[in-house]
Amino acid sequence: MVTKVISATVFFLCSLNLVAQQEDSIAIKKISDEVLTNGTAYENLRYLCKKIGPRLSGSANAQKAVEATARMLKEAGADTVYLQPCMVPHWVRGEKEKGYIQLANGTRHALKLCALGNSIGTGKKGVTASVIEVKSFAELDALGAAVIKGKIVFLNFPMNPTYVETFRAYGESGVARWDGPSRAAKYGALATMVRSMASNPDDYPHTGVMAYNDSFPKIPAVAISTNDAVWLSRQLKLKMVLTAYIQNTSAMLADAPSFNVVGEIKGTEFPNEYITVGGHLDSWDLAEGANDDGSGCVQSIEVLRAFKATGIKPKRTIRAVMFMNEENGGRGGDKYLELAQKNNEKHLFALESDEGGFTPRGFNLEVTEVQYQKLLQWKDLFYNYGVYYFRQGGSGADIEGLNKAGAALAALSPDSQRYFDIHHAVTDVFENVSRRELHLGAVNMTALIYLVDKYGL
Amino acid sequence: MVTKVISATVFFLCSLNLVAQQEDSIAIKKISDEVLTNGTAYENLRYLCKKIGPRLSGSANAQKAVEATARMLKEAGADTVYLQPCMVPHWVRGEKEKGYIQLANGTRHALKLCALGNSIGTGKKGVTASVIEVKSFAELDALGAAVIKGKIVFLNFPMNPTYVETFRAYGESGVARWDGPSRAAKYGALATMVRSMASNPDDYPHTGVMAYNDSFPKIPAVAISTNDAVWLSRQLKLKMVLTAYIQNTSAMLADAPSFNVVGEIKGTEFPNEYITVGGHLDSWDLAEGANDDGSGCVQSIEVLRAFKATGIKPKRTIRAVMFMNEENGGRGGDKYLELAQKNNEKHLFALESDEGGFTPRGFNLEVTEVQYQKLLQWKDLFYNYGVYYFRQGGSGADIEGLNKAGAALAALSPDSQRYFDIHHAVTDVFENVSRRELHLGAVNMTALIYLVDKYGL
Repeated sequence: MVTKVISATVFFLCSLNLVAQQEDSIAIKKISDEVLTNGTAYENLRYLCKKIGPRLSGSANAQKAVEATARMLKEAGADTVYLQPCMVPHWVRGEKEKGYIQLANGTRHALKLCALGNSIGTGKKGVTASVIEVKSFAELDALGAAVIKGKIVFLNFPMNPTYVETFRAYGESGVARWDGPSRAAKYGALATMVRSMASNPDDYPHTGVMAYNDSFPKIPAVAISTNDAVWLSRQLKLKMVLTAYIQNTSAMLADAPSFNVVGEIKGTEFPNEYITVGGHLDSWDLAEGANDDGSGCVQSIEVLRAFKATGIKPKRTIRAVMFMNEENGGRGGDKYLELAQKNNEKHLFALESDEGGFTPRGFNLEVTEVQYQKLLQWKDLFYNYGVYYFRQGGSGADIEGLNKAGAALAALSPDSQRYFDIHHAVTDVFENVSRRELHLGAVNMTALIYLVDKYGL
Repeated sequence: MVTKVISATVFFLCSLNLVAQQEDSIAIKKISDEVLTNGTAYENLRYLCKKIGPRLSGSANAQKAVEATARMLKEAGADTVYLQPCMVPHWVRGEKEKGYIQLANGTRHALKLCALGNSIGTGKKGVTASVIEVKSFAELDALGAAVIKGKIVFLNFPMNPTYVETFRAYGESGVARWDGPSRAAKYGALATMVRSMASNPDDYPHTGVMAYNDSFPKIPAVAISTNDAVWLSRQLKLKMVLTAYIQNTSAMLADAPSFNVVGEIKGTEFPNEYITVGGHLDSWDLAEGANDDGSGCVQSIEVLRAFKATGIKPKRTIRAVMFMNEENGGRGGDKYLELAQKNNEKHLFALESDEGGFTPRGFNLEVTEVQYQKLLQWKDLFYNYGVYYFRQGGSGADIEGLNKAGAALAALSPDSQRYFDIHHAVTDVFENVSRRELHLGAVNMTALIYLVDKYGL
């Protein structure tokens, strides 16, 4: 009899589970149909890219983007929209950078280059010096001051093409950009030229942030295009290179006032429990920040719109957050966490989209094992919408501290093949975002938040 | 004791299986590293797109493409390269098409239009008539000759945006283009305007083949852009439309001689068993046929190159085939089958790539249940390379008859979100193909052929 009772109970629970799964499946289909048919993310992105453009922290455009996304959040149906003031670094590129390689045969090769974010300038005179190439920090350390002193260090760390996921290659080679300048300065380098972080050979520099280590002198740092890097490496091997010249007038100004933009739908049962979905509103100054991260912003706004348009009323309060200053300081994320802690907010879950508006493949998670098992039970609901993995490891730069406020963390993980063609470069424009890919990402983001909100974590 | 023997046997077999899986995993990694690092598919595609361009069957460019891909196959290391002569339909677009809508307020709205492939021309005079919109064949049949006769029929069959896989929507709405003209002619229509098969609103017509039903008169058929279709539908509702005018000088000429291009690597153990991998070399005339199907051609060439470059010697003979005339006749596919049957060839497997050079997600299969179960055992080997489904249903237009020669059939199934932005339109250019996505497709194609060759099916 015990067996029968257990069987009946198991059967009952399974049935309940089946009914719930079917309900969820229908709700997610409704979300998908709404977003794929009436989604406004793409048109909002067009506005951010074409009516505003680059949105570097502290710039007039960044402020325009604050105002525009506040309006978009209202249009999406947010109950409340407000700004969170925060001070941000205010770095300016200055005039168009110049640079060339002086060859032994008397010719000059003009470099496609740009200053790295946060770099100091060379001054109008620029820096002229001989060039030394290094392919690893071990090599740099081995050469030491005896060789490095007085030179321009060329950090040639190509992204590994054999890694199928391009972010893995970026993580490995990106150290050249982040740490390279100070590591070279330690040995008396005058400046650094970093090979752009790009997956494919191309003819434009990719900028991005670098960070000075206060123990060493600050030296100017530029990125050169991958094609220039390949060319320069060959010329160095042929002993053809006499000197390099670089000039940039970049400068870090005083911190400037700015804002995170927050839109909320109030929860019906647990209004004081928060689920955050966001992207970052600032972008590099070389293009329109379409994929990085206009996409994540408009997708987050679309999540709110999808809840409203489908009539799904969340139990918890859902917040769409446009974080300011992810690219060169992370001050918006810091401020959001600071206020969450100060106000004793209970944060359940935070999801960031900051890997481009490309076709979705999965979610990356930073959750407990118990939460992970719960999430895995929902995975199959996403299969028809292109998401087939939920995996531990990685969230988003703006939300990664929110675990301190109790939040489980997640990131949309879109296909990464095209990301480093456009990342931080002149090619990160609206035309390189696909309407359906962008909207399909928003479908999956909304579906995940719908489930976390409904069942908790 | 029996138990122990069985256990030992099972253990032994499992171990064998594990060893084989590990071997295969290493081989596939080697293939992937080779293609992602040294792949030439992208540069071959650049040549097809930028040095040759549109490759409509019977055109001079199609012949140039025959010669170019024969050379590429040799460079890739094919043991033998040869041409299979076949006659192809020779349709020509004629002069740039013209068309407009005459509105009741006296203004004219110029249409973005193009003739559908295989359509007859209107003659220089063009066709002027009133317009009737239909949204389904049921509606067309219900209206019948009483309403349709003497009119231009506007077939407005939008692609369903809620289908996540865009090919499903194409299958459903595409009937308007394929069958619409003759179905309208049955009721005495003078001409047809078909809404372009496009997933998103855009401002350019998408061409594609239509087929006349010999029971009814041949009437001219054009595609108009989706934005024009939306506009026209609204104007018709407002009773603003007086007449439409369309003019095209398209014509079907006499069949022309052309070729399939075949490159082979001879099998070491079963040289008379064939595995085919292919794409189609012809393309529509409005753009470069980059995704449709230059991509499939250069990926198939890359499969041969990957075998050669990694030193993997296939047991069976691997053939990369550039099929001619998929777009408006399928004569190349027919010829390949005809010769296979005539020569009594034993065909084991055929794989086509003709859904764009986008990031791979899976394989579509037309195989027996036993073969399917065998294939499923290999599926996990593809996971790290982006392929996570093997599913029954669908192969490729050029190979679908090869089951008559014994072949199991398959198609690479890449992400479909962007395909109908470029399909048969001016946007199908090299710039809309990603190097890494294209090469990753070739990785998976090579891996599948490696396994089928090694283990049979």
